[in-house]
Amino acid sequence: MPMLPPATPGMSLADVDTPALLVDLDAFERNLKRMADAVAKAGVRLRPHAKTHKSPIIGHKQVALGAVGLCCQKVSEAAAMVEGGIRDVLVSNEVIGARKLDRLAALSRQARVIACVDSPLGVEQLAAAAARHGAQVDVIVEIDVGASRCGVAPGQPAVALAQAIAREKHLRFTGLQAYQGRAQHLRTIEERRAAIDEAIARTKTTVSALKAAGLSCDIVGGAGTGTFELEAASGVYNELQAGSYIFMDADYARNKGASGGAFDTFEHALFVYATVMSMTDPARAVIDAGLKTFAFDSGPPIAPDFAGAIYERPSDEHGSLNLSQSNTRPGLGDKVRLIPGHCDPTVNLHDWYVGIRGMSGASPVVESVWPVAARGGVF
Amino acid sequence: MPMLPPATPGMSLADVDTPALLVDLDAFERNLKRMADAVAKAGVRLRPHAKTHKSPIIGHKQVALGAVGLCCQKVSEAAAMVEGGIRDVLVSNEVIGARKLDRLAALSRQARVIACVDSPLGVEQLAAAAARHGAQVDVIVEIDVGASRCGVAPGQPAVALAQAIAREKHLRFTGLQAYQGRAQHLRTIEERRAAIDEAIARTKTTVSALKAAGLSCDIVGGAGTGTFELEAASGVYNELQAGSYIFMDADYARNKGASGGAFDTFEHALFVYATVMSMTDPARAVIDAGLKTFAFDSGPPIAPDFAGAIYERPSDEHGSLNLSQSNTRPGLGDKVRLIPGHCDPTVNLHDWYVGIRGMSGASPVVESVWPVAARGGVF
Repeated sequence: MPMLPPATPGMSLADVDTPALLVDLDAFERNLKRMADAVAKAGVRLRPHAKTHKSPIIGHKQVALGAVGLCCQKVSEAAAMVEGGIRDVLVSNEVIGARKLDRLAALSRQARVIACVDSPLGVEQLAAAAARHGAQVDVIVEIDVGASRCGVAPGQPAVALAQAIAREKHLRFTGLQAYQGRAQHLRTIEERRAAIDEAIARTKTTVSALKAAGLSCDIVGGAGTGTFELEAASGVYNELQAGSYIFMDADYARNKGASGGAFDTFEHALFVYATVMSMTDPARAVIDAGLKTFAFDSGPPIAPDFAGAIYERPSDEHGSLNLSQSNTRPGLGDKVRLIPGHCDPTVNLHDWYVGIRGMSGASPVVESVWPVAARGGVF
Repeated sequence: MPMLPPATPGMSLADVDTPALLVDLDAFERNLKRMADAVAKAGVRLRPHAKTHKSPIIGHKQVALGAVGLCCQKVSEAAAMVEGGIRDVLVSNEVIGARKLDRLAALSRQARVIACVDSPLGVEQLAAAAARHGAQVDVIVEIDVGASRCGVAPGQPAVALAQAIAREKHLRFTGLQAYQGRAQHLRTIEERRAAIDEAIARTKTTVSALKAAGLSCDIVGGAGTGTFELEAASGVYNELQAGSYIFMDADYARNKGASGGAFDTFEHALFVYATVMSMTDPARAVIDAGLKTFAFDSGPPIAPDFAGAIYERPSDEHGSLNLSQSNTRPGLGDKVRLIPGHCDPTVNLHDWYVGIRGMSGASPVVESVWPVAARGGVF
């Protein structure tokens, strides 16, 4: 059922079929290295989020550079990572329902799987599943550090839940999930710092209250690509869960960096390759990439090779490049690169990564074709 | 690589894993029948669009009720339909590039495949591919009937392109593609009628100009779920390409019908089933279905079983049901049905349809589990 791949290794970029998900391998590898260096320097662990890439191949590259394991958002995603050889996976999201929890508990017989809870019902269901499978599952408590989504309140409510975990024979209290998702795309460093300062305060309070109750946190996890330097320097977070840094999307590029300039710690390494398939008006190039090729929740894609071109009017399989403000214009049949607005849900639309070596050189070539192994892993 | 299915036939609805794409089979079958009856009464042909369902299983049901074949939007989608046993497929979209055209021409050796062009380059590339494969390909010319996306201008430009097709030994001029996509979601019948009157006028002009040049149109195709009655009554369109009527999404339900009341010709037959996996605030149910489960281009999903509930704040794998205005509230662990904002790109996110019999009765049960065979078919 997966689609035939749009390329084969050795092919030149120009011959890749479209729409295709391209990885600029040189930029991607530099991004991997920059994050590995940053966490090593800060003295914290990296557990990158696999919801970005959904690929054990990429996960192994992260582990090779020092990551302690991966985060996943769903059990089916975790299964794809474990089956692909990743030995330590944290499901950073509440799992409710016997079917999913049976799968999680069974998976924990094959690798370390860390589960996340924010309710007594979650503890009860997870303990029952672990018992059914004779498994011992590590569990973290999610606290609300300001995003008002999931997570119990910091302090005593978190302690009560941790104690409920500690009482279960098949569960082991392992720490806290303290991710501030809303902070990631606040545009200025000052806004992000204010949000993360609040998250740090709530997390510190909770770690202290747990300590007073005789419970220690092996994992205090959180952080994303937009804020990881703040959590890394906090003295309380010890595992960073950033994911998007490997690819950098158009929306993250709208953040400002620490000095107020561009957020350029990481490079754009993910592109969609598309073909101009209709051009009855010279100011409008219609391309073969629309709602089924890009996620639009964080804005349209950007065409970096045509300054002034604006992607607009997406429909299922069409998008229009408005070229009225662009001095350089593609022609009918030309292939164009686009930077997705939001990388994670865009990757999830594709079956294959096409890895390009020498993207910015004279002869870019296909080096690898990797499956997006956990694509569709919403269970 | 496809995900394990979320259900098995015979299971009760309540046991289906989430998020899952549910089809209310009773409503779906009534929708199929209503459209079949409407086109039979109008004396036109139906060639439903498979970009909605991407399933030859559903396509065969449409053909069994009289459809002459299917439309597809991409060659890979057409391949999935032909390989699934559909014998007559129209690719209602320009195909540019040797690799795709080789696939199209090769496919036309196995079934009738009708291609669509709007440029001399398109004709030239298609003719070359057909010659390489010793194929004879039926070709239609797309004209711009008011959507300003693809298509040559009506009248003489279309005639010139049709003549270019007719000169090619391996191509056969077969008619016109005249779809007015922008008209489908205009909210009132008056607005839709004005747009389609214009489309009909442009199409009539072109059919006459072709006739004067000695070229006849076997196919004059277009129409969608929002306007099909207008094209059916036009006297010029002879094939309707509606797709969404089988499922009806939340956005089509915002259209007004002919009498100014609700557009209720078709029933909602497609739902996403989701689980409340976090509920730390009684006015906010966090569900396991976000950007990777729904397309949001036409608005958020609707929760029909909880009046006043508002789906908001989607992230990759979370959505929040704001329950502050809702008197009935789901609890933690409950499963809820949601009607997608836009059916086509939502279906494209899933690997499986779970067909439910007796959805509105006391004991809804899983009757079928069908693959979304052409999911990801963007090539």
